[in-house]
Amino acid sequence: KKITTLPGDGIGPEIVESGKAVLQVIADLYGHQFEFQEGLIGGAAIDATGVPLPDETIERCQSSDACLLGAVGGPKWDQQPPHLRPEKGLLAIRQALNLYANLRPVQALDALIEESTLKPEVVSGVDVLIVRELTGGIYFGEPRERRTIDGEEGVVDTLVYKKSEIERLLHRAFQFAEIRGKHVTSVDKANVLESSRMWRECANEVATHYPSVTLEHMLVDNAAMQLIRQPKQFDVLVTENLFGDILSDEASMITGSLGMLPSASLNGTAFGLYEPVHGSAPDIAGLNQANPLATIASTAMLLRYSFGLLEEADCIEQAINQVLLKGYRTADLTNANAISTEEMTKAVIKEIK
Amino acid sequence: KKITTLPGDGIGPEIVESGKAVLQVIADLYGHQFEFQEGLIGGAAIDATGVPLPDETIERCQSSDACLLGAVGGPKWDQQPPHLRPEKGLLAIRQALNLYANLRPVQALDALIEESTLKPEVVSGVDVLIVRELTGGIYFGEPRERRTIDGEEGVVDTLVYKKSEIERLLHRAFQFAEIRGKHVTSVDKANVLESSRMWRECANEVATHYPSVTLEHMLVDNAAMQLIRQPKQFDVLVTENLFGDILSDEASMITGSLGMLPSASLNGTAFGLYEPVHGSAPDIAGLNQANPLATIASTAMLLRYSFGLLEEADCIEQAINQVLLKGYRTADLTNANAISTEEMTKAVIKEIK
Ligand SMILES: CC(C)[C@H](C(=O)O)[C@@H](O)C(=O)O
Ligand SMILES: CC(C)[C@H](C(=O)O)[C@@H](O)C(=O)O
Repeated sequence: KKITTLPGDGIGPEIVESGKAVLQVIADLYGHQFEFQEGLIGGAAIDATGVPLPDETIERCQSSDACLLGAVGGPKWDQQPPHLRPEKGLLAIRQALNLYANLRPVQALDALIEESTLKPEVVSGVDVLIVRELTGGIYFGEPRERRTIDGEEGVVDTLVYKKSEIERLLHRAFQFAEIRGKHVTSVDKANVLESSRMWRECANEVATHYPSVTLEHMLVDNAAMQLIRQPKQFDVLVTENLFGDILSDEASMITGSLGMLPSASLNGTAFGLYEPVHGSAPDIAGLNQANPLATIASTAMLLRYSFGLLEEADCIEQAINQVLLKGYRTADLTNANAISTEEMTKAVIKEIK
Repeated sequence: KKITTLPGDGIGPEIVESGKAVLQVIADLYGHQFEFQEGLIGGAAIDATGVPLPDETIERCQSSDACLLGAVGGPKWDQQPPHLRPEKGLLAIRQALNLYANLRPVQALDALIEESTLKPEVVSGVDVLIVRELTGGIYFGEPRERRTIDGEEGVVDTLVYKKSEIERLLHRAFQFAEIRGKHVTSVDKANVLESSRMWRECANEVATHYPSVTLEHMLVDNAAMQLIRQPKQFDVLVTENLFGDILSDEASMITGSLGMLPSASLNGTAFGLYEPVHGSAPDIAGLNQANPLATIASTAMLLRYSFGLLEEADCIEQAINQVLLKGYRTADLTNANAISTEEMTKAVIKEIK
């Protein structure tokens, strides 16, 4: 199996190194062969090639079975014009590889329950899978431009969806719900947006194919509230690109730390791109302080969704739980006795073994 | 001074009655004359006239100095076509009266600190003013339609802003910041949306007119997180229509109850429309159980912003605080010994006197 790593910027290289190390240990233990190759993306790609996503990177990803991405962006490239910004590499790779289904699981880990700003009884037991549409909507719609309106300067962005784009994503959500809590909350703004009304129609239609799953519609403003009020009510939360961006970052606060959250971006095949939800944290880049657990958890998702290696995935996730229960903490999770990125990685590897 | 009340649907009539009673007491105590007239909106207007916002209602509002609105909507009208839904009345009145600046203050009340699902130390002392653009953006942009895309069914919504619409709203936000904590957080999605990039430029430009106020830009996904992580970092949060809708409902959870939150919708003049942030709660309509405090707090905003009666406004807000400190609670805030809408209204009036 071929894995392309895309370290990117900031702490990206360090945490991807941790992920690779864990994957290598799994390969050795379980007798698999993982072949690694590396690709450029984000600021690192801009510095080396002038663009945030070189064609060569796309080709490498396409010729592999899965990708592991670190993070992109940093102050160094903040003055670049929009189409030459590191984030553009992220948006472009989603489109180029048709990664339309973004999975962001949010689970409360008992060992970290006190980290959350929410009360323990609200957080404990939360297990939400956010399924976010990732290649459509207002992120990519045209026109997106400055324009003269009524004789003065104005601006336009466009939210566009084809029915098939909405449906394929909803099918994924219902399929995940079938093997989870059998409940889908579809989030939209159907009292205002025409696209949300189509979304709601599609959800109702797709739901008929999954009789064991219950479907609930929720307005996005209410969802933003309910995630804080009673997060345990959610099983699978499915929504369009921008709503998913906002709600998944909000939901990350349930766990108390963005440093723990993995993600998967899937197309219709087994191929997927896996990355931590957090950013490139340029302030601690290269200092061996970053929390590698979100990236390590992403490797578990990689094994599960792209390679079908369920036991191996479980093994990694249990190891993460164990090191946390044993009290190991990186600097983002503690004020005292923080361990380094490398030490945390080693602790996880020791648990795996 | 003329006030048009728009009771609307569900609990709307009951809570507007409470608001009127409080305004009447203030008039008597301080020697003012308030003249009340009533208008139809929402489902009530649909039932009576066939449309959610009759022209007559607009005219009544235009001929008055301020409006007090209850709430609109309910299951009875859920099957109506989009342009004949109660919410359409709300959207239409915002446009008809050019109410572009929506103010949603979120304050942690010590008496209710335990109501929040957030930890007391996170919530205590929070005092955020959300300033939301209310008459533009994707709520009103054209085209908004079903459309054939690549030979299949598709849908489009459009986010449109004129520079002047963004600027006038930002000026309001900075003006409020000047008399508050002198900090503006401008929320956008400038790494994706062209409209957000224009928003950011406008914010930078407008900021130069308010040298005593500091300006910070924050991406909307991060803002959704920071409101939970550290709400005390915000003073004035200013943003476009849809982001404001989502973030203000999320922020309401800081106070623990939507039942407490007032709002003001202003145009460039002293005129304003005031309403509770919560909805029409059809399940408890007519039962004398609704919490009238958000509506009563809205009358305080009315007195402050439309009539310039600062002392009277403070008096109402202090009375609300006092009844809560004395332990009075409606059913949304307690499981035992709940008092009725009327009893709560009387308790506030007693404090005012
Ligand atoms: C960097 C940005 C363009 C991106 C997004 O908005 O999708 C990020 O916030 C994310 O959620 O992966
Ligand atoms: C009812 C709905 C159209 C409205 C909005 O989205 O503006 C409501 O959520 C609000 O915030 O006042």
